[in-house]
Amino acid sequence: MTRVACAQLAPRVGDPVGNRARTLDAIGTARADEVDLLVLPELASSGYMFADEAEARALATPTDGPLLADWVRAAGKLTVVAGFCELGGDGALYNSAAVLDGEGVHAIYRKTHLWDRERLVFTPGDTPPPVVRTRVGPVGVLVCYDLEFPEMPRSLALRGAELIAVPVNWPLLPRPDGERPPEVIMAMAAARTNRVLLAVCDRDGTERGQRWTAGTTIIDESGWIVGSGPAAVADLEPGRARNKSISDHNDVLADRRPELY
Amino acid sequence: MTRVACAQLAPRVGDPVGNRARTLDAIGTARADEVDLLVLPELASSGYMFADEAEARALATPTDGPLLADWVRAAGKLTVVAGFCELGGDGALYNSAAVLDGEGVHAIYRKTHLWDRERLVFTPGDTPPPVVRTRVGPVGVLVCYDLEFPEMPRSLALRGAELIAVPVNWPLLPRPDGERPPEVIMAMAAARTNRVLLAVCDRDGTERGQRWTAGTTIIDESGWIVGSGPAAVADLEPGRARNKSISDHNDVLADRRPELY
Repeated sequence: MTRVACAQLAPRVGDPVGNRARTLDAIGTARADEVDLLVLPELASSGYMFADEAEARALATPTDGPLLADWVRAAGKLTVVAGFCELGGDGALYNSAAVLDGEGVHAIYRKTHLWDRERLVFTPGDTPPPVVRTRVGPVGVLVCYDLEFPEMPRSLALRGAELIAVPVNWPLLPRPDGERPPEVIMAMAAARTNRVLLAVCDRDGTERGQRWTAGTTIIDESGWIVGSGPAAVADLEPGRARNKSISDHNDVLADRRPELY
Repeated sequence: MTRVACAQLAPRVGDPVGNRARTLDAIGTARADEVDLLVLPELASSGYMFADEAEARALATPTDGPLLADWVRAAGKLTVVAGFCELGGDGALYNSAAVLDGEGVHAIYRKTHLWDRERLVFTPGDTPPPVVRTRVGPVGVLVCYDLEFPEMPRSLALRGAELIAVPVNWPLLPRPDGERPPEVIMAMAAARTNRVLLAVCDRDGTERGQRWTAGTTIIDESGWIVGSGPAAVADLEPGRARNKSISDHNDVLADRRPELY
């Protein structure tokens, strides 16, 4: 079994020291709880509600800076997927996620679908999301709005991802009484459609007037929710996501008709 | 406003006369209720649980046979999307849906993703699902399992469909207490992802031991359910599905990054 956890932190713009401390606390707690894979929110290092590009730039960090080194040092055998505000080697800002463990940083993914005012701050990534060989198996990575493009989880599943880790910051949207957040419904569909596990780590709190959904959700390969809330945790079998068969004659990936799409 | 209805019939294998009467009754009721678009289940003419290919063949009908002529005659200004067991001009059997009104049959779509034992009976269609110009605007058509491939509603939305009509026969699957049928969750996600309306007409009853989900659902362009049950009806504005904008800087179709998928 693989223990998957999401730490639904409440990062704050303007408090990088506190944000860093909260991420390191979450990593420590996960290790104490014998978690194998921990997902942290989008932009966990910086907060989200930047006044402008200059404020984001002041909070950005290069991938070889002290923040990711601290995370690596803290991780041990734990695999961590965490969102951060990246200062690229090209000087551009990226809304990125790192996949790392105590051995080092294994991949950086730069969000390719930017949400709303992120476009005024970040440069979109221009490479497909990675599938990273980790201790818990092949893990795909998306960031927030990426997940609303079914092409993205599909691409990761076709390339062998068994679990998709998704750091998000979901602004609270209106929804009918009794309904789940719409993003959770889309996540459930993505899991079942591809028979992959999903671990979606949202953020908590209100930041500069923006309320967040706090919709953290861990989803099994049939699309059902197996963990949620501020410290979601679930014991899963990623290997089950290797089996794409759903009837005597059907396989969710092999049944595709790409010549028709 | 466009009035959309689904008639969740209970067709029976071996009772083509009764099945035909039930579809014509549903068309008459819809006209009396001033419905603009009526969706009938998958294989409404034949039932689903064929013993073998020979039984399906005996219940199949060519597109120029009396069944579709009866439907056209009954439809008047009503647009009908109905599933039927098609005997192709090539002698093969297809799990098809017709789009028609009193002026004639406007399109036939042959299901391209066959479910389970359908593969022993039907030939899969080899052309993409159509977008049909109807009195209620551009309508896309899928049949049942097709909808579980997000590429399909995406393709229809990209080609201008504002509403997607989906005749289905959903076998009852296990699901956690309090959850909707998984197919409904995937349908809600498809609607919201593409900002299109969905009218999914399931069937009722038990047939040769197979229980059906009876999961008929009409869904708005935000992915919320606006009609369900055996005689689902909803008044909708398909034109709203033309607007793909979801923030000051986002559009669900224009934001795609096809070069990355």
